[in-house]
Amino acid sequence: ESFPVGILTVSDKCSKGLATDTSGPALEKLLLSQGEVWTITEKQIVPDKAQIIASTVSSWCAPLERTDNIGSPSTTAGHCRLVIITGGTGVSPSDVTVEAVEPLFTKKLGALATAMVIGSLSITPFAALSQVAAGVIGQAIVLAVPGSKKGSVENVQQILSILPHAVETAGAVNGTRHLHAP
Amino acid sequence: ESFPVGILTVSDKCSKGLATDTSGPALEKLLLSQGEVWTITEKQIVPDKAQIIASTVSSWCAPLERTDNIGSPSTTAGHCRLVIITGGTGVSPSDVTVEAVEPLFTKKLGALATAMVIGSLSITPFAALSQVAAGVIGQAIVLAVPGSKKGSVENVQQILSILPHAVETAGAVNGTRHLHAP
Amino acid sequence: ESFPVGILTVSDKCSKGLATDTSGPALEKLLLSQGEVWTITEKQIVPDKAQIIASTVSSWCAPLERTDNIGSPSTTAGHCRLVIITGGTGVSPSDVTVEAVEPLFTKKLGALATAMVIGSLSITPFAALSQVAAGVIGQAIVLAVPGSKKGSVENVQQILSILPHAVETAGAVNGTRHLHAP
Ligand code: NA
Repeated sequence: ESFPVGILTVSDKCSKGLATDTSGPALEKLLLSQGEVWTITEKQIVPDKAQIIASTVSSWCAPLERTDNIGSPSTTAGHCRLVIITGGTGVSPSDVTVEAVEPLFTKKLGALATAMVIGSLSITPFAALSQVAAGVIGQAIVLAVPGSKKGSVENVQQILSILPHAVETAGAVNGTRHLHAP
Repeated sequence: ESFPVGILTVSDKCSKGLATDTSGPALEKLLLSQGEVWTITEKQIVPDKAQIIASTVSSWCAPLERTDNIGSPSTTAGHCRLVIITGGTGVSPSDVTVEAVEPLFTKKLGALATAMVIGSLSITPFAALSQVAAGVIGQAIVLAVPGSKKGSVENVQQILSILPHAVETAGAVNGTRHLHAP
Repeated sequence: ESFPVGILTVSDKCSKGLATDTSGPALEKLLLSQGEVWTITEKQIVPDKAQIIASTVSSWCAPLERTDNIGSPSTTAGHCRLVIITGGTGVSPSDVTVEAVEPLFTKKLGALATAMVIGSLSITPFAALSQVAAGVIGQAIVLAVPGSKKGSVENVQQILSILPHAVETAGAVNGTRHLHAP
């Protein structure tokens, strides 16, 4: 068993088909390099619209099993244990990813964001211009990283080794391991 | 004369006697290694309950001298100039320390937290999973560090040399040195 | 054409003429070392009063051109694309700069602040005691750095090379380059 992952690409151009999303596939490849830890269950490209970003991430992080109104459990889209958002994290007025998702965080993971920033700054000083963020929504860890292929991969690489443990711990129910964790 | 310090251990297990608190004593030993700068005046072990954490820290950071209802000054518990909280700073849903104390900060000391995180990340990548925090409450500097003995000591060690100056400055009254500072 | 810059010195003593502002001129010299990228259009020394700091920064960051009530465009003070505030960023109760300007940020640039802090910590551990901050107000990037000449210059130096690109991008209108940018 592996952790379900959602990868959200935020880009006006890619969402209109005016550019090809290379960051989403690069992040997918990076995660799958860790073996069977992760299964990519959600992939989507959305424009730089705060409401669309927030509602997509919310639905991916909602509880997996719900009871429908006749008492049977039903599966929903919401079940991710890790969500990586690439794009919309620059300093331009059109970049709204962090403003969209931070209000959804039940726990802000400042040190996780700092670890990504420190590592990325050691590669390029332009890493200072990304609004990298990390937090918990539901049982998921949510990361916001740059939109460029290079920037998105470099940021996640900084924390890749500890990400399985982070996700396992963040999804613990009542202090015990979550049943669906490996 | 030395600065009064409170050390608060946040742990469900330790508070129930199911585990021994090793972090609190280790932090005490670390501070006392600086000589007569600090006096540990408050020590307590509390469960991972936001309300208990917040009220304990609040009372430790309240003004020292109050006038009782017959006009005489009386000493209260509140008088710490430094409070170190160990535990409840992980990514698990049961970790609530930072959520409990950050709303009490009158000043958030982001660079102080970043200094602890940077130093700790140079020791272990798992430092990225701690919600390390620093801020001012009343005349006290309040630090939230990991619950493990190793993690708590490593974080405070990063800033130990500047902590006396930080506490002296944070407790300055109207821009002048506080009367009780050494 | 170059970017208009405001430099605000926050200091009770300097505002009363009891001390000479050396940080403002040092920051001006640092920026002008980059050639014709910047033009210092606003310089002021204000006391450590949150309301004065906030209203000064707000007016400097307001849109450049407005239409007066008879339909003609008129120039106002507000037109800076970069504002550097030096002072009022320590841990003392009298330090209120960050508390004054952070509520005005439409975008908080955490990684930019982290880049300044990391670089400054490599010079002195006392950098941990500054509330360094960075954000966007209007079309301007606003930085809050220490009040000392050494500290203010050291912090800005950490990000000087990327500052022109940051300011150009932050001021982009609707995702395109702003007309007034070089
Ligand atoms: Na973008």
